[in-house]
Amino acid sequence: MVIAAGTTRTARIERITAAGADPKARAHVPSVDAELVRYGRPVSVPRVPTSPSGTPTPALVTRAVLDAVSDTTRDTADERATEGVTPLIVDAGMEARTAAPTIDVAAEPGGDLRTAEPVPAAHTIADRARAVGRGLPTERLVIGETVPAGTTTALGVLAALGEPETVSSSLPNNPLARKREVVTEGLAASDLDRGDCAGEPMEAVGLMGDPTLAAVFGLAAGALSAGRRVTLGGGTQMATVAALLAHAGREPPPVATTSFVAADESAEIRTLTDAVSVDLRVTDPGFDAGPEHPATAGYLAGEAKEGVGMGGALALAADAGLSSAAIRAAVIETYDRLIEREPP
Amino acid sequence: MVIAAGTTRTARIERITAAGADPKARAHVPSVDAELVRYGRPVSVPRVPTSPSGTPTPALVTRAVLDAVSDTTRDTADERATEGVTPLIVDAGMEARTAAPTIDVAAEPGGDLRTAEPVPAAHTIADRARAVGRGLPTERLVIGETVPAGTTTALGVLAALGEPETVSSSLPNNPLARKREVVTEGLAASDLDRGDCAGEPMEAVGLMGDPTLAAVFGLAAGALSAGRRVTLGGGTQMATVAALLAHAGREPPPVATTSFVAADESAEIRTLTDAVSVDLRVTDPGFDAGPEHPATAGYLAGEAKEGVGMGGALALAADAGLSSAAIRAAVIETYDRLIEREPP
Repeated sequence: MVIAAGTTRTARIERITAAGADPKARAHVPSVDAELVRYGRPVSVPRVPTSPSGTPTPALVTRAVLDAVSDTTRDTADERATEGVTPLIVDAGMEARTAAPTIDVAAEPGGDLRTAEPVPAAHTIADRARAVGRGLPTERLVIGETVPAGTTTALGVLAALGEPETVSSSLPNNPLARKREVVTEGLAASDLDRGDCAGEPMEAVGLMGDPTLAAVFGLAAGALSAGRRVTLGGGTQMATVAALLAHAGREPPPVATTSFVAADESAEIRTLTDAVSVDLRVTDPGFDAGPEHPATAGYLAGEAKEGVGMGGALALAADAGLSSAAIRAAVIETYDRLIEREPP
Repeated sequence: MVIAAGTTRTARIERITAAGADPKARAHVPSVDAELVRYGRPVSVPRVPTSPSGTPTPALVTRAVLDAVSDTTRDTADERATEGVTPLIVDAGMEARTAAPTIDVAAEPGGDLRTAEPVPAAHTIADRARAVGRGLPTERLVIGETVPAGTTTALGVLAALGEPETVSSSLPNNPLARKREVVTEGLAASDLDRGDCAGEPMEAVGLMGDPTLAAVFGLAAGALSAGRRVTLGGGTQMATVAALLAHAGREPPPVATTSFVAADESAEIRTLTDAVSVDLRVTDPGFDAGPEHPATAGYLAGEAKEGVGMGGALALAADAGLSSAAIRAAVIETYDRLIEREPP
């Protein structure tokens, strides 16, 4: 699995994302997510990132699920298969330092979507990521992302491409009106009408997106050209990458997401995946099949929903034959180990 | 295992190192070594680095040995133990791009030892590496390095510290006279007499060393302060890091090296390890216990000898109960898989 970790100044807009307990913590989320998936715990800060209400970052779920997959497959699969679940992190423009090892694709933090060119290096990032994607010695590549406010920049890119403008949210109530306002401002600042970037995917990302979209696009394009089996692990942001690939004349690989995104009526992810003819695979982690627990309660209440490759990790777990009960137990165990619980 | 991968312009001096088939290839060696230990094969270039005479980089040996250790321990050890043999790469100032994920410690390629201050950021690199070393969630940490001409910069640092000036070489005939000349020029350029940096280890590295020495020093210091079991995996460069730690008032961790370094009479590694009271562990990979093969012939002829954590990987293999025969077989298998052999 590869996670593109980046930032966009769009995340500084109020009430647009649930990532990070506060705006200052938000800038650190991708850097700590990277540590969490790579090392199994935060390294450069003491705490696991949570939403303001305490829902743990999907990075915790992804790592817990990958650990469970690894435990299941270690005795049966060969080393190459194991390599496939060791997360690699691509630095797609992190703002804060991370102690995780990262692959360099020349990305910088993205600018505010409401400026003229928030990702001036989009083409370069995509080219560098393409070379990495082509070279990675793995038969199957699941690609995820972590970028606060990433659904807003995805919405901007969909507008620039002229695709259905429908995205999910890490907030229980998708602030779609706010996002549309931001996108309208962004189109004006970039001197674009809807659909002006059709067939020019990296133009769309450069003018309306964030650096992780360029990185994931490049990674996927490179891995596909090398004949790898690629899965885009995520929700509407990954469906947006599928759209970007379609606009580059490529057949997009399947998107693997969570049941929380699929159930988000505000997102209508199928409208988008149908429009770009991409297969959507939905996996339910079975969080509702047991007593309430802080590891899972936020997800059941509609927070977070997806991210940091969570849907992709769940698809790998399903392929490895893991039950929902095993997945839920792994997530709760990881939460209890990493997050000090208040005594009841 | 953690490998600090960096460069120094000192490597551009003629006939000072066996790393790289030619000077242009030399600049890429640490970047490709990083890919080789992380991915099991080169990614950004087509070929495994070799010396001009065809001896494969010790990175190939390290990866082969770690794979063999992983195969042996996967069914018996827990995940944390496995984590210990998954190499992490620290970017200690690589000159060429790498597709490997790297931990950032703010290092730049080092300058020529014959200039006034070849590593101006030595203190910063050490501080950043210390934070990483403290945070890494592993009980046992083996630290290695890859930096062409690293024994020459190590010699410079030993001179600055006033320790016994004795280092090994990747060449069968250690060009010690040439190295001493370079060090003499370096001392003059840095306005230093021998021993002027005693008790000031990062001064010594800043004025006479290379960035990997600062990174390994910091990683080791951080991991030691967090109570980890640290092994410096390498030859006279790692003995030099042990000296740096001693000059910082710390008890240095053991150095694990190969029998090729221990047998190098020009190096007298024990003079150095005795001087700084560090334990030296020597492991013989048993390369001579079988028919001649290009994977091992160069080592038996005194080339390469050590590097990229080779001695540390061999120590891990010995701890895991691997026989010399198994190690030799793993190295030959990896060589045959990665390097196209001429038909006989």
